[in-house]
Amino acid sequence: MSAEKTFAIKGHLIRNTDPGSLEVLRDSWAICEGGVVAGVYPVLPEKYAGIDVTDYGDRLIIPGLTDIHLHAPQYAFRGLGMDLELLEWLETYAFPEESKYADLDYAEKAYEIFADDLVASVSTRFCVYGTVHVEATVRLMQMMEDRGLHALVGKVNMDRNSPGVLRESSAEQSLADTRAWAEECGKFRNVRPILTPRFIPTCSDELMHGLGRIRKETGMALQSHLSENPAEVAWVIRLCPESKGYVDAYDSFGVLDGGRVVMAHCVYNDFQELETLKTKGVYLAHCPTSNSNLSSGIAPVRMWLDLGLNCGIGSDIAGGHSLSLFHTMAHAIQTSKLRRRILDGSLAPLTVPEVFYMATRGGGSLFGKVGDLSEGYAFDAVVLDDSRMLSPFPLSQMQRLERMIYQVGPDGNYVHAKYIGGKLVYSADKIR
Amino acid sequence: MSAEKTFAIKGHLIRNTDPGSLEVLRDSWAICEGGVVAGVYPVLPEKYAGIDVTDYGDRLIIPGLTDIHLHAPQYAFRGLGMDLELLEWLETYAFPEESKYADLDYAEKAYEIFADDLVASVSTRFCVYGTVHVEATVRLMQMMEDRGLHALVGKVNMDRNSPGVLRESSAEQSLADTRAWAEECGKFRNVRPILTPRFIPTCSDELMHGLGRIRKETGMALQSHLSENPAEVAWVIRLCPESKGYVDAYDSFGVLDGGRVVMAHCVYNDFQELETLKTKGVYLAHCPTSNSNLSSGIAPVRMWLDLGLNCGIGSDIAGGHSLSLFHTMAHAIQTSKLRRRILDGSLAPLTVPEVFYMATRGGGSLFGKVGDLSEGYAFDAVVLDDSRMLSPFPLSQMQRLERMIYQVGPDGNYVHAKYIGGKLVYSADKIR
Repeated sequence: MSAEKTFAIKGHLIRNTDPGSLEVLRDSWAICEGGVVAGVYPVLPEKYAGIDVTDYGDRLIIPGLTDIHLHAPQYAFRGLGMDLELLEWLETYAFPEESKYADLDYAEKAYEIFADDLVASVSTRFCVYGTVHVEATVRLMQMMEDRGLHALVGKVNMDRNSPGVLRESSAEQSLADTRAWAEECGKFRNVRPILTPRFIPTCSDELMHGLGRIRKETGMALQSHLSENPAEVAWVIRLCPESKGYVDAYDSFGVLDGGRVVMAHCVYNDFQELETLKTKGVYLAHCPTSNSNLSSGIAPVRMWLDLGLNCGIGSDIAGGHSLSLFHTMAHAIQTSKLRRRILDGSLAPLTVPEVFYMATRGGGSLFGKVGDLSEGYAFDAVVLDDSRMLSPFPLSQMQRLERMIYQVGPDGNYVHAKYIGGKLVYSADKIR
Repeated sequence: MSAEKTFAIKGHLIRNTDPGSLEVLRDSWAICEGGVVAGVYPVLPEKYAGIDVTDYGDRLIIPGLTDIHLHAPQYAFRGLGMDLELLEWLETYAFPEESKYADLDYAEKAYEIFADDLVASVSTRFCVYGTVHVEATVRLMQMMEDRGLHALVGKVNMDRNSPGVLRESSAEQSLADTRAWAEECGKFRNVRPILTPRFIPTCSDELMHGLGRIRKETGMALQSHLSENPAEVAWVIRLCPESKGYVDAYDSFGVLDGGRVVMAHCVYNDFQELETLKTKGVYLAHCPTSNSNLSSGIAPVRMWLDLGLNCGIGSDIAGGHSLSLFHTMAHAIQTSKLRRRILDGSLAPLTVPEVFYMATRGGGSLFGKVGDLSEGYAFDAVVLDDSRMLSPFPLSQMQRLERMIYQVGPDGNYVHAKYIGGKLVYSADKIR
């Protein structure tokens, strides 16, 4: 099916009206024109007579989800070594595994598994960390592009406090590689490069300043980590004695301005820092599964929503073990409840409509008009099949959606069909 | 395959040596004689030449898991209404749904789905709450017995502080029904009755004392809820002003002595109460998924282990939304990490071997010698198929187990075959 051809799909369409509520458009048609939602109708309008139509019957159709933070090379060891302390885990799994991506054959083998699983997942758009290796990262981008995925993918920058085999030889080299890589990425249409300093402890001031300059020249998006755990925050304070804090440190390198910046975790940012992040329009990636697995803590997401910050949900593979954003959304609700019970009774728990919003329009807006089944939005749609979940009583569409969010685990695949930018990228019918 | 016939299965056997560690017996044979493990060998001994053998090849074989706390009638609304406050959730879902089980046709329809899903799950033994209805509970027990499951199943007792339609008319009636029900259960072999006062707030003193007497006379097992959340604990203190606390209240009714008592949750028991529970040999059912969903808190399980308490893991369907004990085990580890980070840095997080122990020998010992692939234990074995989880590098058997524990979500089914007491109750080969 070409992205250019006009077509329609039918089913029970579900979307947010606002962060606090969901609406169901039963037995409705969504029209795709030029890769974009041209309209949503209870009856196919006369003017669309004769276009290709697919009736998905009683199935639910939701906007595509955006996984706003994950590490591609870590997918291979998701769910492994989770009993280790963070530092041990990095040394035993993360760094040795990432170093393997200097070998293109290995990268190809591992990234094929990753890219195929992305296609089958409930998510349609992704904000991905690769490794420091340019070639492997380009290979990954090619695989994702070939599969019809839309994404921002980053070649990682790190020139200090990293194991030798992953440490780039100098800031200069790292920046030169980054420029060459960004240029090579010109050949990709839907998978775009994003500047990816791993985080301040692994990036020299010179490197950070250089990335700030590239950003200013090219307008490239940027992603990094921020305030994930107390020890890391303290480390950054020591490394940047001139700064008022972690956010201010990033800001001093000129990387926060200009839009399309994603900061993962943000568990420990105070009100003042959140205000700064809001002013700059920075996206906060909430990664609850990872924050549990790595003993990081629980981010005050209710505060982010109240402040109107840009925020989305990230699987954070492989700090998070689950590629399923549904599972991650359920975990976000669960940990928000624990946070209220144990830490701060003033912040109400997250709700299903809220995490749905974060996973769709919240993170999706990083890619433009994405994450809604409304006119003018990219035609990103996921057709869900919950026919295997039996029920002794009839469920409303809303109940069916909630059940899926809770029941679809890390390994779960209830995707019947998936469209991204109007292109059918996955169909269970074709596979089975 | 008869439970009486001697046979052997082969694969990579995994079991705990103690709560702190797991061992893998690669390519080994487990012999079943009369429903019990007769031995485990790297090579099939001469004396067993000619017995039926099944070689599961590269698959993992683990002891059966015991789900030590779940509510059968709540399975129908698992993962629904999780945004509601506890009281609203009970009124919107739990009580209306449980009241439907007065209708045997409905009970049959709902329990069929439940029983079939139990068979396909990673668990082999279960501690189940039914409803107050004798007939529906007997029907459930029959279905479980017919499917080869082993379980303790309870007709619930509640004669106060309950919605009218579920409140038994008097303590006397409740006790008479319980006696008649227990007698009728004489026809079941592997699914046995367990006394099930819902919890103190819904059971009058007279009812509790009466159940204490039945227990003394019959030696029946007993299950209830204990210290799930702060409001409930405070309520019990008000209801039992003579008691020193929640544990003491149960004790005053004479229900804690005599063994085979399961108390679910135990999030808020202090050291003194834990000592009492230890003295009485009470089983503590850790239900982390439920404790998150219902904003209950995080139980200090590390303390239970250090004190050497009897404890197991419960899915607590439908406070917990996941029937997968693997998923529940992973959640137990995750919340123990959050507890350390947020609440009490002195208690180390749980580990994979520890939650595995709790889910196997921990809870299994309630059923006798259950939860180990060692000589003399019931032949409860689960053959796992993780061939769909691709990896770019070879994984050890231990890594494969850990990955499955993390990756098998609420809906996940990676069971290839399942034996309970030597009987093959599930085989993916036969179904596909």
